[in-house]
Amino acid sequence: MSALKQLVDNEVIRAYATYTTIVLLKMMLLSLITSYYRMTRKAFANPEDTALQSGGGDIKKYMRIDQDVERVRRCHLNDIENIIPFVGIGLVYALSNPDLYTALLHYRIFAGSRILHTISYLYALPQPSRALTFFVGFLVNASMGYATLRSVSYF
Amino acid sequence: MSALKQLVDNEVIRAYATYTTIVLLKMMLLSLITSYYRMTRKAFANPEDTALQSGGGDIKKYMRIDQDVERVRRCHLNDIENIIPFVGIGLVYALSNPDLYTALLHYRIFAGSRILHTISYLYALPQPSRALTFFVGFLVNASMGYATLRSVSYF
Amino acid sequence: MSALKQLVDNEVIRAYATYTTIVLLKMMLLSLITSYYRMTRKAFANPEDTALQSGGGDIKKYMRIDQDVERVRRCHLNDIENIIPFVGIGLVYALSNPDLYTALLHYRIFAGSRILHTISYLYALPQPSRALTFFVGFLVNASMGYATLRSVSYF
Repeated sequence: MSALKQLVDNEVIRAYATYTTIVLLKMMLLSLITSYYRMTRKAFANPEDTALQSGGGDIKKYMRIDQDVERVRRCHLNDIENIIPFVGIGLVYALSNPDLYTALLHYRIFAGSRILHTISYLYALPQPSRALTFFVGFLVNASMGYATLRSVSYF
Repeated sequence: MSALKQLVDNEVIRAYATYTTIVLLKMMLLSLITSYYRMTRKAFANPEDTALQSGGGDIKKYMRIDQDVERVRRCHLNDIENIIPFVGIGLVYALSNPDLYTALLHYRIFAGSRILHTISYLYALPQPSRALTFFVGFLVNASMGYATLRSVSYF
Repeated sequence: MSALKQLVDNEVIRAYATYTTIVLLKMMLLSLITSYYRMTRKAFANPEDTALQSGGGDIKKYMRIDQDVERVRRCHLNDIENIIPFVGIGLVYALSNPDLYTALLHYRIFAGSRILHTISYLYALPQPSRALTFFVGFLVNASMGYATLRSVSYF
């Protein structure tokens, strides 16, 4: 059996593939939501984007900052800041041959925490709901990082 | 033959390595372009960066926002938002043992769309040129994500 | 011996796992530093985040931009721009079966340069200290990208 086949058959690798795909697709949704708000709120960042709205008229009117757009953008940036560590550390953690149950627990909690984080952010739920979802995801990454350094580190 | 050798010999893994490197090197170019514009436009974000320009004189003059700098920065951020999913999903998609031809098609179209996106952004080409290049790359990531979840998902 | 076991036993893969985890954990620290400054400087980006401070009073007062917060955020964004290429290119470079000593050299220099970059940024050290640390990390990524394209490229 080839090495690649063996990797694909490994449950931890498959769980990593699954949850990485889920959180990245979720993150990609925020690009669409930003575009949607930019068009409905008529708030653009580039002069060339306003052509459809301004019809050759006043461009400046549509080059503005909208609070709904900015909220989605902040949510997106927070995703980036937390999902990059998940993709990177989650992979090397999977390669470190962890217990399947423990790995699944990490991946599931992270994915859940980021979905709830997005909901808390976009609906502006009262704090500390968003802060809590952030810290849960943060701790999952820290825990996987610690486990990886303990088991496979080579300096 | 070792597992690593087998992975390196796999064409899909090599294609992933190639196109991931290309899009990331392209993204890195934007850091240099930002630096170039900051210096030629004399528009800096940090007081300590202005020393060479201000010669100990008025710092505030050089702490400003320049539209050319901001355009490159928006382009860079859009790259980040789309290349992270490509790096993560593209990898697990490669591990899911796809058909070589299909995988190459995904990787090539993504790389092409991001190069065209950068050109559309930096030269401010009329819309919908930039929007189209964005959506093509977006669909490639979505398609690889769907294929991965279909073939190797483990929840 | 399984493919995953063989990968875990490979020193280059273990070195990649180690240094990727280190730079990502370092990057994650910046999220905490941002939160710390937002709370001590009372400078928030979302109305719902001010509830604890404003006690139902004037929210606008706490919705402001603070230069210390912005400095950490710029440092964080620069990390994102450079650590994404490291995670992606560093991985495919490891898969390309490089010499262990050369690989370790790349990984160590990159991690060192990013730690020094963060120190230069947060303490606002005189330039060109920060610029130098940035370029060292940049060159490491470029060098790994070049090595990968030379040894495993498949277009």
